[in-house]
Amino acid sequence: MIKNSIKKIGVFTSGGDSPGMNAAIRAVVRTGIYHNLEIVGIREGLNGLIAGKFTKMGARSVSNIINLGGTILKSARSEEFRTYEGRKKAYDNCVENNIDALVCIGGDGTFTGAKIFNEEFGIQVIGVPGTIDNDIFGTDNTIGYDTALNTAMEAIDKIRDTATSHNRVFFIEVMGRDAGFIALNSGIATGAIDILIPEQKDSLEDLFENFERAKKRGKNSSIVVVAEGEKLASVYTLAEKTKEKFPDYDIRITVLGHIQRGGSPSCADRVLASRLGYGAVVGLMEGISNQMVGIRSNEMVYTPIEEAIKKHNTINENLLKISEILAI
Amino acid sequence: MIKNSIKKIGVFTSGGDSPGMNAAIRAVVRTGIYHNLEIVGIREGLNGLIAGKFTKMGARSVSNIINLGGTILKSARSEEFRTYEGRKKAYDNCVENNIDALVCIGGDGTFTGAKIFNEEFGIQVIGVPGTIDNDIFGTDNTIGYDTALNTAMEAIDKIRDTATSHNRVFFIEVMGRDAGFIALNSGIATGAIDILIPEQKDSLEDLFENFERAKKRGKNSSIVVVAEGEKLASVYTLAEKTKEKFPDYDIRITVLGHIQRGGSPSCADRVLASRLGYGAVVGLMEGISNQMVGIRSNEMVYTPIEEAIKKHNTINENLLKISEILAI
Amino acid sequence: MIKNSIKKIGVFTSGGDSPGMNAAIRAVVRTGIYHNLEIVGIREGLNGLIAGKFTKMGARSVSNIINLGGTILKSARSEEFRTYEGRKKAYDNCVENNIDALVCIGGDGTFTGAKIFNEEFGIQVIGVPGTIDNDIFGTDNTIGYDTALNTAMEAIDKIRDTATSHNRVFFIEVMGRDAGFIALNSGIATGAIDILIPEQKDSLEDLFENFERAKKRGKNSSIVVVAEGEKLASVYTLAEKTKEKFPDYDIRITVLGHIQRGGSPSCADRVLASRLGYGAVVGLMEGISNQMVGIRSNEMVYTPIEEAIKKHNTINENLLKISEILAI
Amino acid sequence: MIKNSIKKIGVFTSGGDSPGMNAAIRAVVRTGIYHNLEIVGIREGLNGLIAGKFTKMGARSVSNIINLGGTILKSARSEEFRTYEGRKKAYDNCVENNIDALVCIGGDGTFTGAKIFNEEFGIQVIGVPGTIDNDIFGTDNTIGYDTALNTAMEAIDKIRDTATSHNRVFFIEVMGRDAGFIALNSGIATGAIDILIPEQKDSLEDLFENFERAKKRGKNSSIVVVAEGEKLASVYTLAEKTKEKFPDYDIRITVLGHIQRGGSPSCADRVLASRLGYGAVVGLMEGISNQMVGIRSNEMVYTPIEEAIKKHNTINENLLKISEILAI
Repeated sequence: MIKNSIKKIGVFTSGGDSPGMNAAIRAVVRTGIYHNLEIVGIREGLNGLIAGKFTKMGARSVSNIINLGGTILKSARSEEFRTYEGRKKAYDNCVENNIDALVCIGGDGTFTGAKIFNEEFGIQVIGVPGTIDNDIFGTDNTIGYDTALNTAMEAIDKIRDTATSHNRVFFIEVMGRDAGFIALNSGIATGAIDILIPEQKDSLEDLFENFERAKKRGKNSSIVVVAEGEKLASVYTLAEKTKEKFPDYDIRITVLGHIQRGGSPSCADRVLASRLGYGAVVGLMEGISNQMVGIRSNEMVYTPIEEAIKKHNTINENLLKISEILAI
Repeated sequence: MIKNSIKKIGVFTSGGDSPGMNAAIRAVVRTGIYHNLEIVGIREGLNGLIAGKFTKMGARSVSNIINLGGTILKSARSEEFRTYEGRKKAYDNCVENNIDALVCIGGDGTFTGAKIFNEEFGIQVIGVPGTIDNDIFGTDNTIGYDTALNTAMEAIDKIRDTATSHNRVFFIEVMGRDAGFIALNSGIATGAIDILIPEQKDSLEDLFENFERAKKRGKNSSIVVVAEGEKLASVYTLAEKTKEKFPDYDIRITVLGHIQRGGSPSCADRVLASRLGYGAVVGLMEGISNQMVGIRSNEMVYTPIEEAIKKHNTINENLLKISEILAI
Repeated sequence: MIKNSIKKIGVFTSGGDSPGMNAAIRAVVRTGIYHNLEIVGIREGLNGLIAGKFTKMGARSVSNIINLGGTILKSARSEEFRTYEGRKKAYDNCVENNIDALVCIGGDGTFTGAKIFNEEFGIQVIGVPGTIDNDIFGTDNTIGYDTALNTAMEAIDKIRDTATSHNRVFFIEVMGRDAGFIALNSGIATGAIDILIPEQKDSLEDLFENFERAKKRGKNSSIVVVAEGEKLASVYTLAEKTKEKFPDYDIRITVLGHIQRGGSPSCADRVLASRLGYGAVVGLMEGISNQMVGIRSNEMVYTPIEEAIKKHNTINENLLKISEILAI
Repeated sequence: MIKNSIKKIGVFTSGGDSPGMNAAIRAVVRTGIYHNLEIVGIREGLNGLIAGKFTKMGARSVSNIINLGGTILKSARSEEFRTYEGRKKAYDNCVENNIDALVCIGGDGTFTGAKIFNEEFGIQVIGVPGTIDNDIFGTDNTIGYDTALNTAMEAIDKIRDTATSHNRVFFIEVMGRDAGFIALNSGIATGAIDILIPEQKDSLEDLFENFERAKKRGKNSSIVVVAEGEKLASVYTLAEKTKEKFPDYDIRITVLGHIQRGGSPSCADRVLASRLGYGAVVGLMEGISNQMVGIRSNEMVYTPIEEAIKKHNTINENLLKISEILAI
């Protein structure tokens, strides 16, 4: 392992926050300090990089955060970073503060920014996938995904208590603008009679058929889980159309919303974030740049950021089939 | 204690379900069996009373339910019971099945029905307050209220993680059509900067002043908790008006909805439900009728159903003041 | 309300920590600042008072702690405070730092120390009951008790899953050296077949009889909840004796231990702690001293510390009876 | 896919129970019924196979169990099945009830029994890995492991609250007789300063060095997580030796015990169990026998039972290193 000569690393979280980001920050800070690097925390994502919101971080500055949701460095989406002027300011800040390399914790948007920044100014960057949506290629799971699954599932479990007690039908919207991972897995885990996701062509006919079948099989209450990005229709329209078709149904709607972004991270997310934060620093030390660190089949791997953004984890077809069979 | 001669008790849950109803059913069944009474479970509330959906219940039939949300007897609102014909059918079913007395677990609507039923047909009834809203007079807490508070609080905690990370403002609607208990207590417990409840006259001016003050004090993110029945405006309108006033605010809305009705009951709710279920049966045995059993200042008390419906627990004024002071 | 002339208040947590102490600290700090008082945080309890571990606290210094278990001021038991020399040092520190009054958050031991300190040096003190054991007179609940109940209950729920699956008998020790409140309530909430607490004379005969009865009634698994301070025997001895009597029983033991002291406080505990922290500061401003603030029947009350220590909340006899009836 | 001619499948859970077993049973039952097979539930594991405790199961018989810990079929270890006579009885029961194939949900011991049973009597068997220990080869995760990790982590989080508040050292024993997976992952997730597992040679010197280093770095409290099967010493001895070496340490011990076996399964465990239950039935239909179904790298795979028992998942060396670095 040929170590390169970096001495000071900046770390930030950007885009939508996800549970486990703090565990990743902690891992970056401590791995860096263990290897005698200086670590600088950049507050409020790419905006903070432009505004120079830098703080030196020591091993104790990340004590007692591994279990906290959100991100102590705060996060933001940055319009200014989309302009060359914004990025130039950010680069000047890095130079002025002797920052050799950046660990960029976030999703698609963050990675796109990091890639351009690297290509324009040559500064070494590495991505750490932090988003609840699991829509990043190059890692089996993104940080926060497992926690979001459990949060969604626990919320739906609670709704199921009241659905069952009242023989009701619930349409439940979970997060996932482009990806149905949360919907599919939380739907299977809560025995949803139908799961609607953007990766799959859905139709009202199929949905209604599932209702008919459920009825025939003696089911008195039903949960339908719908991804935010479902193309067929929103939960509101779906509920309305269903009511037209089955006027005697007692239908309710719940949009789970932002509760899915918060909460203390699950064990899997804390371990994943710890490994990826470690892998990011070690990767930078080895000279890796413009890549994202991930875990695939339990091994640490680095994927070009371009690929991480462009490609997508595909929905397991088998899982879709299982979800249908088990909902009978 | 002069025991009266009842031999067979029917028990049902009616109206909106609440966590702890199963613990109450269990207590009714086991207290009855302990005293050599027969217990009949009536499914689907007052509808089941009309339709004769009766099941004999033994001590083992309520095993492993004390920790379950919802109600194994299922619940429903009944239009038919509002008619004399409906109630007559219900009474005939009771006579036919030798049911001497009824334990009615539910809220306002359930109690109103029970009261009329008692007055028309003379059948002995006792009410057990089961509703998450805590809007029943004659008991410090209703069954399910404490659990709903914790559910709302935990959801808001999660939202606060993401609000803090993004410097956002969240308007969060919690349940409570006529009562602000859930909003007030979950708001205090999560450090809300404002809490809007139907019992209090609110104004946009006060709300905006709270935002200004929070800003001045260095708060970067804010939670506003709003009861479902708030009279000033809905969370949607409140968010809109706030955005007009503070255009730079990053505002989000969450309606917690039905997750607040479900979930495994808290310890306090299981103990309360156990005591009230016991108290209901013992009360019936002592000849008490047309009353509701409650716990006030840790003592079991019986309140005429009429009073339980008409009077209301008032919001603690001191608590409102504390909520303001602590949000600085 | 005649305000007295205090300007600066010190606050500390002492003795065993309990969930909600942070919420109480927050309430003390913010109520003080709202009333233009200075607030000083004293670290590590009475030891810190002696060692002068003082920090000025502002409204933002208690941000985001209402939901955290433990105590940010840390806690300790102090041997040195039992000596006059220790207390003299503590007093000199108060004088030197212009501390007019102390808010003492803790239990029995803390209150005893505070009382002596007040009597010796005349400094104004007020107690806030923070202990999971609920063994303080003058308040219906102590801070942390409700959370500990839920923690114990949730742990026992998990154990019950495996007990039921294997037809096993579990002896579970919960905290409570002198008081059986946690054991009694968590036992009722989990359907324990027997609950052994120090306030009650227990015998092996009664225990064995409960086992026999449970068997007869068709119960295949059983939970026995035992308070730490149970006088009959430890869980280990109880298990051994039971095995001798019922050799075919598959018996297991769990000592829940310190998990009961931690965790994010429940809604009830956060609200209680907020009210009591507020009440402590307001009480001091009104000149109240050598008293403890509590909530009884939902009203704020002040009780002489001497009484709070000497008297005890008694176990509700009715609850004991209910626990037996419901375990059939 | 050539379907074989099986018509009736028996399913049982055996050995230590684990969260998610119910989800697996549900998946077996519904997948079978979907494919027009008959499904028979065998109660109490291999004992029930010998005693003929059989129940026909329909799609509704597994409603509302996906979220429950434990196993509705109950579990047991069987001495009698170790004898030929026992197995012969079991086989005769299968013949008599026209059971063509068995789905055996459990761990090592269960699989060993199933393998012998298959080899002696030729009955088709397939294994489903259900154990919290994750010590089965042929699957990345066993059913229940992820839930147990989260349970252990949440308990340690609570203990950390009180450890931090009191500057204490805690030795915490987690489950894992032969495998350190739970200890290693829950230890990383909770920032343990040392993790002792059977797969690694540990020494008191290394442990003490970690304590020294933690002290130097300013850590005031420490968690040491120890696997049940650790060879160096028990938590009791470790605590004693540490006290001798560091007499001023305030040391406490917690044995988490059976809480780790129970609880509502995590999303990952419910999905895993659903997939494996499905895979077991489909495998049997395809004629697969004497194999275990698992998920590796997100794909369903079948591994000879012999291999599943003999080989072992190895601890990720990298993870051990990360655990040390991050605890600085």
